[in-house]
Amino acid sequence: MSVRGIEKILPLILNFRRERDWVKFHIPKELAAAISVESSELVELFLWRDKEDAGAPIDDDELMLAIQEEVADILIYLLYLSHDLKIDLKEAIINKMVKNAEKYPVKEYFGKFHDGAL
Amino acid sequence: MSVRGIEKILPLILNFRRERDWVKFHIPKELAAAISVESSELVELFLWRDKEDAGAPIDDDELMLAIQEEVADILIYLLYLSHDLKIDLKEAIINKMVKNAEKYPVKEYFGKFHDGAL
Amino acid sequence: MSVRGIEKILPLILNFRRERDWVKFHIPKELAAAISVESSELVELFLWRDKEDAGAPIDDDELMLAIQEEVADILIYLLYLSHDLKIDLKEAIINKMVKNAEKYPVKEYFGKFHDGAL
Amino acid sequence: MSVRGIEKILPLILNFRRERDWVKFHIPKELAAAISVESSELVELFLWRDKEDAGAPIDDDELMLAIQEEVADILIYLLYLSHDLKIDLKEAIINKMVKNAEKYPVKEYFGKFHDGAL
Repeated sequence: MSVRGIEKILPLILNFRRERDWVKFHIPKELAAAISVESSELVELFLWRDKEDAGAPIDDDELMLAIQEEVADILIYLLYLSHDLKIDLKEAIINKMVKNAEKYPVKEYFGKFHDGAL
Repeated sequence: MSVRGIEKILPLILNFRRERDWVKFHIPKELAAAISVESSELVELFLWRDKEDAGAPIDDDELMLAIQEEVADILIYLLYLSHDLKIDLKEAIINKMVKNAEKYPVKEYFGKFHDGAL
Repeated sequence: MSVRGIEKILPLILNFRRERDWVKFHIPKELAAAISVESSELVELFLWRDKEDAGAPIDDDELMLAIQEEVADILIYLLYLSHDLKIDLKEAIINKMVKNAEKYPVKEYFGKFHDGAL
Repeated sequence: MSVRGIEKILPLILNFRRERDWVKFHIPKELAAAISVESSELVELFLWRDKEDAGAPIDDDELMLAIQEEVADILIYLLYLSHDLKIDLKEAIINKMVKNAEKYPVKEYFGKFHDGAL
């Protein structure tokens, strides 16, 4: 993966919504809903698939393209939301990872299942 | 918002799961489910709230912190998935934005509601 | 609304999947994912819509039909899951409502917003 | 599973929200969001679990209780929404099953995977 140059993306997507006068639709609550809808479209791509069929790498080119598009959609809305709420993504992740590391000490969780998401 | 330096985050989160031997849980299908679960936790923060109360900027510090944590969680799982499937996020977004621009021409959609997500 | 006769639905939907030999796909985990995917399709129908436009009754016939179809899809998967796990829906709801009533005493929550879902 | 007597549930849950004066929060758009949030809580219960561990019957009593509670929550919100929009659930399911039967003919789909949800 590369995230290099991802900060160059922001002007592109901000321009896209400015040109269409869509800022008025993008209140944070709606953007959160849009992120969730796109995430479910990503989940749907894997529905009914076996572990073997749903593991990396994905051999199916069509599936792989669809995954990339949904991942892009999620990230686009996430960038809109973070921009509008002035969230520093790097800082937000670092802060959360510190919390995660405290919540799941290596000693206790090495190789072990943990309940739910982070 | 700043996404500057976000590529420095990747080694941090990869190390976190390696240390805990959690790679085995992270098949793409599960990561997609985790992204969706975290997205719904973000949606839940806005549930029942009025537009006024759910618009930017968010004045409530506690709510704002919770939003930042959920945004971070979504992005962490998105980065794991993109890493494991070797998705170039910058390229994926640019490709999708080209498609979006074709699907929603400015002339037709200026200031207008469009059905559903991107 | 009427839920009268809803128990007559179960044989219909069980027969549908038996005829297609789809029982093998319907492990509880997958059914849960399907419920969540269908729920997001319901959410998507309301995306970007104003409160006025998203309140009952819904005047738009096309939207109303789409809502009914998504509600049906959610309930179909919920019925499969409940059947397979031998969940007594009536009992499950009554038990949960008792818990909800304890968690949200009328005195404290009358007319008041509560954080998140039930 | 039993859905017998589920129509007796409706007065119970309507009374619950009337007593708390929560009708004002329950616009259809919000109820849709609540259904989706509860569905993700159901999904979360299965996260990271193997097929073996996520198949019926579920041996883990604590997990089974949690599943029942989430199923109840989803259904409660679905009943509110159906009540408020005057959706006849039995009719909605029958109509959708007719469509599904046309979309997935037995001959073509017997034992076969189909893309996505219904």
